[in-house]
This record gives sequence, C-alpha cells and structure tokens, in this order.
Amino acid sequence: MKFKFIIIALGVSLSYGICQAQNNPEPIKEDFKPAATNQPGQQFPQVNSQGYARFRIKAPQSDSIRVSLGLGGQGGTRLTKTADGFFTGTTSGAMDEGFHYYHLTIDGGIFNDPGAMNYFGSSRWESGIEIPAKDEDFYANKNVAHGNVQQILFPSKSTNSSRRAYVYTPPGYGKDKRRFPVLYLQHGWGEDETAWSNQGRANLIMDNLIAEGKTKPFIIVMTYGMTNETKWGRMKDFKIDGFQTLLTEELIPYIDANFSTMTTANGRAMAGLSMGGMETHTITLNKPELFDYYALLSGGTYNPSELKDKAKPRLIFISCGSKERPEGVKNAVSALKEAGYNAVSYVSENTGHEFQTWRRSLRELAPLLFK
Amino acid sequence: MKFKFIIIALGVSLSYGICQAQNNPEPIKEDFKPAATNQPGQQFPQVNSQGYARFRIKAPQSDSIRVSLGLGGQGGTRLTKTADGFFTGTTSGAMDEGFHYYHLTIDGGIFNDPGAMNYFGSSRWESGIEIPAKDEDFYANKNVAHGNVQQILFPSKSTNSSRRAYVYTPPGYGKDKRRFPVLYLQHGWGEDETAWSNQGRANLIMDNLIAEGKTKPFIIVMTYGMTNETKWGRMKDFKIDGFQTLLTEELIPYIDANFSTMTTANGRAMAGLSMGGMETHTITLNKPELFDYYALLSGGTYNPSELKDKAKPRLIFISCGSKERPEGVKNAVSALKEAGYNAVSYVSENTGHEFQTWRRSLRELAPLLFK
Repeated sequence: MKFKFIIIALGVSLSYGICQAQNNPEPIKEDFKPAATNQPGQQFPQVNSQGYARFRIKAPQSDSIRVSLGLGGQGGTRLTKTADGFFTGTTSGAMDEGFHYYHLTIDGGIFNDPGAMNYFGSSRWESGIEIPAKDEDFYANKNVAHGNVQQILFPSKSTNSSRRAYVYTPPGYGKDKRRFPVLYLQHGWGEDETAWSNQGRANLIMDNLIAEGKTKPFIIVMTYGMTNETKWGRMKDFKIDGFQTLLTEELIPYIDANFSTMTTANGRAMAGLSMGGMETHTITLNKPELFDYYALLSGGTYNPSELKDKAKPRLIFISCGSKERPEGVKNAVSALKEAGYNAVSYVSENTGHEFQTWRRSLRELAPLLFK
Repeated sequence: MKFKFIIIALGVSLSYGICQAQNNPEPIKEDFKPAATNQPGQQFPQVNSQGYARFRIKAPQSDSIRVSLGLGGQGGTRLTKTADGFFTGTTSGAMDEGFHYYHLTIDGGIFNDPGAMNYFGSSRWESGIEIPAKDEDFYANKNVAHGNVQQILFPSKSTNSSRRAYVYTPPGYGKDKRRFPVLYLQHGWGEDETAWSNQGRANLIMDNLIAEGKTKPFIIVMTYGMTNETKWGRMKDFKIDGFQTLLTEELIPYIDANFSTMTTANGRAMAGLSMGGMETHTITLNKPELFDYYALLSGGTYNPSELKDKAKPRLIFISCGSKERPEGVKNAVSALKEAGYNAVSYVSENTGHEFQTWRRSLRELAPLLFK
C-alpha cells in the first residue's frame, strides 16, 4: 500500500522542521520574546515577529549543541558556546507560522530543550515551539465559555487493557438532556491521543468557533491509533484491523453508553491527520454505515471508485498545506464533485505537514459538519 | 511564618531523592526491567525487585553525566562511559518505594532523561521514575469502572485569565441527577494542577477504592496554588490572599455551577500536600464555613487554639511519611483529640516527603470523608 508510506515519509521529514525556515532578505528584528510554548518562567527559546527562533542552553562543559530546527540541508541550527557557559544561536531564516517539534543534539546524544514544554511526536516526548501566526486568534485561550477535555479510561477486550482517550465536551454539555454529534479525530504517526488538544488546541478552536456561532457544538473523541504495532513508532507492520476493532467495537459503544451522543451515522464523523487520515480513509470505507462525514487532513484522498456502491457520505473534506501537494487535494475533490459527492477542499497557505495546517483544517471543517 | 519554610525546605531537599537510597547488604539482583514511568518503548531507566535504579544514556561525545538520584551526600549517581557511546550506572542503594523526580547533569547543564516521562515538579517538567512498591495494587490501572479526569478552563476575574483545573468525576457521574461531595486537593511547592493525577494517580486510587466499596464516590478538584508569585517557583513573597480569592470566590462557585455537587460545607473537603497543606491550613482557618473536612499531608499540623471559636470541622486528618516527623503528626492529633476534635493521624511506613506518602494518605483519607 504505497499511499501510506508517502504520508509517513512526509510526516517524518517535515515534522522535524528540516524544510521550514526560509531565507529572509530583511535584517533580523531584535524583538525576541519567550515562546508561548515555554515552560513556566523560562526565558528561552525565544521567537521574534518575523518568525526567527533563538535558543540558549546552559551546558558549560559541552563541546557542541545543535537544534533540529533550521534551514533545509544544514542539519538544523548549530549553537555557539559563549564565555558564560551557555550555547546560543538563532535560526538562519524565518520559521513557518505555528507549532514545530524539535530536539537538541548535545555531544552526539538527543535531549530536550529544558526551556520548552514537551509534546508527544515521533514516538517520544519532544520539545515544542510556537511561532506566532497572523491568525493565532482562532486558537487562543480567550474569555469565552470553555468546554472540557475529559481523560477517560475505557475497557478494551481486544487489547486486554484499560485504554486512554480524551473527550472534548462543548460548553453547556451535561446541563440538559441534549444529545450531541461526535467527531472521532485521529493524530498522526508518532503522536498519540494528547496531540490534538496539546499541539492542535482543538478544544480552544472549538470553544472560539462555538462562541462566534460558527459551528454547531459537538463532541470530539481522540484516542491512540497505532494499537497493533509490535514496537513503538514502527509502521512497517501496521495493519488497520486492531485499531478498527478498538474504535468501532469498543470505543464508539463506550462513548455512546457514557456520553450524551447521537448514535446514528448522521451524528458521527471521522477525521485524521497524516497517518490518522490513512486510518480514516480505510475505516470509513470498511464501515461506511457508522459515519456520514469523512475528513482527511494531509492524509491522502478518496477517489470515486472506492466509494461506489457504498452508503454515500454527507461530506468529504480533504485538506493539506500549500507546501505539501495541494494540486492532489484539489484534483481529488474535483473528481469527487463530478461524481456527485459533496466534497470540499481546503489548502492552508504557507504551511507544510505540521499542526498549523491541521488547526486551520479543523477550523474549516467544523462548520461543515452535522448540518 | 516559620511553619511554611520548614515545609518548603523539606519539599526541596527530599523531592530530589538525596536521602532516598539506602545501603543494602544483599548483592544486586539482575532482574532489572524498564520502569513503569518510561516513555513508550524505552528500555531505560530500569528498576529491579530490590528498588535499585539503573540508567543508560547515549551521549558519545560527552565527558560526564550524573543522575540526581542516589545516596545522600554523594551528589547522586555518577554514570560511567562505555565504549559504545553510552553512559551507564546503577544507584548505590535501593530507592524508597514509589515515585521520584530526577534529572541529569550533562557536562554541567541540566537536562531530562530521554527515556523517562516528565512530571511537573520543582517548577519545571522533570524526569520521573517509579520504584515498584509492595502495595502498588491500590494505585494500579485495573479492570474496574473508571472515573474521568476533566480539564476545565474557568474564568478568573482576580487574575484576569482563563485558568486550568482538573476535575475527577467518579464512575457513574452524570448518569442521573445525583449530587456529589467535593474534595479540593492541592499539590506541593514547584508542582501544579497536573501532579495529583500524573504523579499521585489520584483518579486510579479513587476508582479502586470505589470498586471495592471502601469509599463514597466524590469529586476531586485540583488547581494551581501558587497564583500570586511574581517569579515561578519563588516562595519568598508568597501570600495566601490571591489563591484564597481564586479558590473560594471563583473556582468553588464555578464548580458548583457546572458540576453536580453538594454545595454546603458538609459536602466539601480541603486537603493538600506540603505547601498545599499550608494553603489548606490557612484557608480552612480563614473560611471554616466552607469546608467540614480538613487534611494536611506532610503539610504541618493544626493546634486546638487555632480552631477555637470557629465552626467545628467534622474531621481533621494529618499525615506524613515515617521518614519525616511522624511524632509531630501524632502529638498534634493527640492534642486535637483531647480538645474534642475528630482527628486522625496516618504515618506512611518507610517513605519520606514524596508521592508514595501522599498516595497512601489519600487512600486512608478518602474513606473518612463525607460520612
């Protein structure tokens, strides 16, 4: 299955930011501030208004520190040792807006930046940095009514374990007997069930959309999607069966039994980013009776022949960043429309295979769901 | 206020494990296994059945790596470089059972162990390691009905922000109109609102107690308690006012408005560990009309003269580890009993100022609440 390996390759190469920084002809503005993703009270890393990132790491007896973020082909940003025992350095170009994973290579070993918060990506907790974006207001923590993100532990016979999922419930949930539709939303390769709220800010995106009356309130369920791997982060042997069983026979029934949900296909959507898009693609085709809304975020496309003779979805949403392969997304949606499907494409401007693309995709997707 | 600085000093010195490891006359058993607190798929750090911890860190060009855990007075465990580019080493003694924070000093800089999960302690995300305990079953993730841990964002005018708290709701919460009592449970110095569920496993402790019929189901609310500090982790200027306002005028009303709670003092408890005990002590004395149950976990004591002429609590629970000052706890409880209070002491055997003491304290406290 060639399809999935293309996605995975994209996920790996781009999520490290190798191609993110751009040459910038303007001089660097000295308006650096601590990144929003820093640990409490930490002054570094910093970001400036142009999107440059600056690092400062204490390691008095080290010989070399390199940051994995930076211009393509240069192996990241090499820091310079200063007399006070710190290593400092600035990316040689502006980074793409939004969230990036990174790590340090210290004397040949891989460690996190002690100034930054950690996020689960590449099958480990990595440092993260937020580059301010012109449109960052849509995922800001604002003074609006907030929904909750609930950690649940649900029983799974197929994996003989009690498994974790996160459930976003919108503001007002539980105050009356109202039932809500549900979006099952998957992370990408090397990420887990924490990604969509931590890196993706899915809860804040929803809170803000709901406050502005732009979307119906709905529940979002996020769980771990790499259930059958024998080794963490290894995709070679990935088969969909284990996750499909867990999702459709264990998690969905648990959610419907324990939350106030709509339990029919027209109240259920599935979406995923990157590898989560591959999972969405396969599971919606295998179980079209469960979901009426499908969305692939930088995670491949549907073609009309795959959908033929199956229950017709009410919406197919396909998106990616402009730095990925937007023509593939647009062409696929054209073909789906021609074949009579309600298909919508979205391309995030100036972003690649990273969370800013997926945050924006969720912002565009949510208003189209459950209409 | 001398009281609080004693607690803080304890928190700082012992939470780094300086005094945890013990000389062990037996030879080291080679039954090391990856620690339960490791990142997914990581083989190191490891722990053996005696409580020794073993570390293995890749850093081919480094000169020195030290682990902050180990025997007192030796500055932790110094790792030895091997020919394959790894540094390895084992603590020179058995560690206390339960959870310990730690970090690495690599060539003079402070970093986390890339094999371990991170936990917020000492005002930063630190590495954590779980030493298996004989009684670990009471905080294990078992096949029982599980409650949820909800991340909420509540509006706070006094701090002009939308603030995070975690709310444990017991199994069955929300299925009917039942109202539940609430325990407000505070973390210690340098920790935050994530500590009681991540390090403390409060949700699993409750799930297991409820499954065994040992406690009434109740809600637990956990929020950040160092609201007024000007600099993260700095206690010198700490005043209770900011946190007391946030807790009693903002969080409690929000919880009562948004969760199905009992809203009178006999349905409300406050407890805290270490600095959270100091907060509990002060706030329950300032606002006795709000809480009927008080608990200090390695966080000081009450004396009868402080309580005189105030609303009488239904329970005062005071605990600590046997390696702290158990006679202080026992004497305080004797004096309280003599003065006519329903006071209970608990001493955790062979533990110090660390989470194993507080996990056990919660196990002992829960069944005594809301009777």
